[in-house]
Amino acid sequence: MNAIASAFERKVHVPLGERAYDILIGPGLIARAGTEIASRLKGRKAAVITDEHVAPLYLEALIQSLEAAGIASATLVLPAGEKTKSFEHLMTVCDKVLEARIERNDYVIALGGGVIGDLSGFAAGIVRRGVRFVQVPTSLLSQVDSSVGGKTGINSRHGKNLVGVFHQPDLVLADTDVLNSLSAREFRAGYAEVAKYGLIDKPDFFAWLEANWQAVFAGGIARIEAIATSCQAKSDVVVADERETGQRALLNLGHTFGHALEAATAYDSSRLVHGEGVSIGMVLAHEFSARMNLASPDDARRVESHLKAVGLLTRMAEIPGTLPPAEVLMDAIAQDKKVKGGKLTFILTRGIGQSFVANDVPASEVLSFLKEKHPQ
Amino acid sequence: MNAIASAFERKVHVPLGERAYDILIGPGLIARAGTEIASRLKGRKAAVITDEHVAPLYLEALIQSLEAAGIASATLVLPAGEKTKSFEHLMTVCDKVLEARIERNDYVIALGGGVIGDLSGFAAGIVRRGVRFVQVPTSLLSQVDSSVGGKTGINSRHGKNLVGVFHQPDLVLADTDVLNSLSAREFRAGYAEVAKYGLIDKPDFFAWLEANWQAVFAGGIARIEAIATSCQAKSDVVVADERETGQRALLNLGHTFGHALEAATAYDSSRLVHGEGVSIGMVLAHEFSARMNLASPDDARRVESHLKAVGLLTRMAEIPGTLPPAEVLMDAIAQDKKVKGGKLTFILTRGIGQSFVANDVPASEVLSFLKEKHPQ
Repeated sequence: MNAIASAFERKVHVPLGERAYDILIGPGLIARAGTEIASRLKGRKAAVITDEHVAPLYLEALIQSLEAAGIASATLVLPAGEKTKSFEHLMTVCDKVLEARIERNDYVIALGGGVIGDLSGFAAGIVRRGVRFVQVPTSLLSQVDSSVGGKTGINSRHGKNLVGVFHQPDLVLADTDVLNSLSAREFRAGYAEVAKYGLIDKPDFFAWLEANWQAVFAGGIARIEAIATSCQAKSDVVVADERETGQRALLNLGHTFGHALEAATAYDSSRLVHGEGVSIGMVLAHEFSARMNLASPDDARRVESHLKAVGLLTRMAEIPGTLPPAEVLMDAIAQDKKVKGGKLTFILTRGIGQSFVANDVPASEVLSFLKEKHPQ
Repeated sequence: MNAIASAFERKVHVPLGERAYDILIGPGLIARAGTEIASRLKGRKAAVITDEHVAPLYLEALIQSLEAAGIASATLVLPAGEKTKSFEHLMTVCDKVLEARIERNDYVIALGGGVIGDLSGFAAGIVRRGVRFVQVPTSLLSQVDSSVGGKTGINSRHGKNLVGVFHQPDLVLADTDVLNSLSAREFRAGYAEVAKYGLIDKPDFFAWLEANWQAVFAGGIARIEAIATSCQAKSDVVVADERETGQRALLNLGHTFGHALEAATAYDSSRLVHGEGVSIGMVLAHEFSARMNLASPDDARRVESHLKAVGLLTRMAEIPGTLPPAEVLMDAIAQDKKVKGGKLTFILTRGIGQSFVANDVPASEVLSFLKEKHPQ
């Protein structure tokens, strides 16, 4: 099948010199994957890595598309879920890729969400010290965030994403049709990262989302537009600071609080998923910035009001079950971020779309803020 | 202790832009490690990775030197031997490095030979997507070869070094005193790689070695000179082609035959060690080049005569035990190198110091040559 590109399709080019690549965003891209890969790259073998939830939905279509384009593939179906980002599964993936005799110009293809993308990208970065890597993200979160930018990795008992490499993909195919199969909760969680790009440095985009979020949720061109704008925003940050020596940290807006909440709920997705933690975290970051007299409290209220409107959690109290005391949350923050002489690096804001990296936030201020927001 | 640099000490600078580093070569460098690191870099924590053979000899001196320079260290002592280059041990090392709370500017220090260097360097390349890495090589082989150039990795059941990253060290401290504790066989095996640099593109160095090898084996300034020249030669090749897209393959002179012999002896070091395989392989590469009418048979004889003089193996028949037939050796070569349409990439030569990368060597010619050299 040689399906034709939709008129709605968008392309974002990530200009990273010899590591430059395209992100294609639109409907029907899985059915066209083989053609898109074969027209850009020269490998003729692929190892497709996916999980047990995604495989029944899209694996066959992807393999057929590769085959039609002359790309032979081996497949590996892993358990779904965050626990798959482990050393054991990394070894399994590497073994599969070697068994498939993937050479430097052949492909590892990640078909799935962030877990599959991060794990497969890591394997692609280390087998033969680097083979080609194609991302076919199947969640909104991975389409707008993890599939772009080259961060790959696995978790350790010491924390999340502590072991990995920077390995940019050679192509990202974000098929927007797959988003129709996401649950409303999954879609909303991904949407938190979309809103984040507006809050970092695109106030107009945030205003557009406030006006058009229902169209984005409904699908069609507004959704493609929102994803493309998000990918472009992430690309801009990554190109300016590929290996996170400075400004790339802006992408962590809302994530310091969010990660602490994920840790405090033991990464139990029945209580909190990543995007929900980020949603609450972004509200907290705006409220904390207001408390530090950096931004108006009106901005924090505006952020909360929008995230609430789309159905996201915005308050710690909304998380099901009991949260540990503020001191424990503060410990999680200190583990996530290095504390130097009582000071933390934090993403703060001067208002909607005016976020910045603050390197000298007093840990004591964060703790009193948390105690205020989450009294025992 | 703040020992003073020996007047004999040599420095080779590897000019890789933001990944540039120094290789120091001379006596007493382990005792001065702390000072050398602290004067160049700013991390104040280290995870020292070593093996059970090396630890009793040098670990305490290294730790004391770090401590005196204000660098706190955790240590991990692994089993000695090639089997340590595994996923399991990689996980152990990463875990230790994280447990020691090594941050991006802190160090993983490899104290040992090639196995420890390759494994620790890989861990340094992936923990937090890359922390600083210092090599303290304790074998001649690792001082002149594996500690320089940034190739790191582990073995897989599909083959050696198939999983890894390019991660350049930030400093290499080649303490030549440690070479006095090597067995004669180990020293000779490392010497094969020294001779290799002459044979690649330094005919004058090869002639110098023919005249001075006894002084190199005896120690002192001739040995330091030989190691520095080797490091400089490797640095030149690496700088020209860091990620092995072309000319870096020259470093494989003698290695295609050598790897096949290592595989054929099941990596049993009682029969053959890497440097011995390379020694036989270099003689075979020169003989094969003569057979292809590229070089004079006199050159092959000259190479063999020198390697024999230092006590290295130069003939397949000298390997203890029975070798498999030529066809099996040929299979091992085909697994090591990709065969495209019956053609192999091989390092051949037009004479002493005139090696080149040949991309179109007929596999059939290699097989008949092997049958001739190794009749059943």
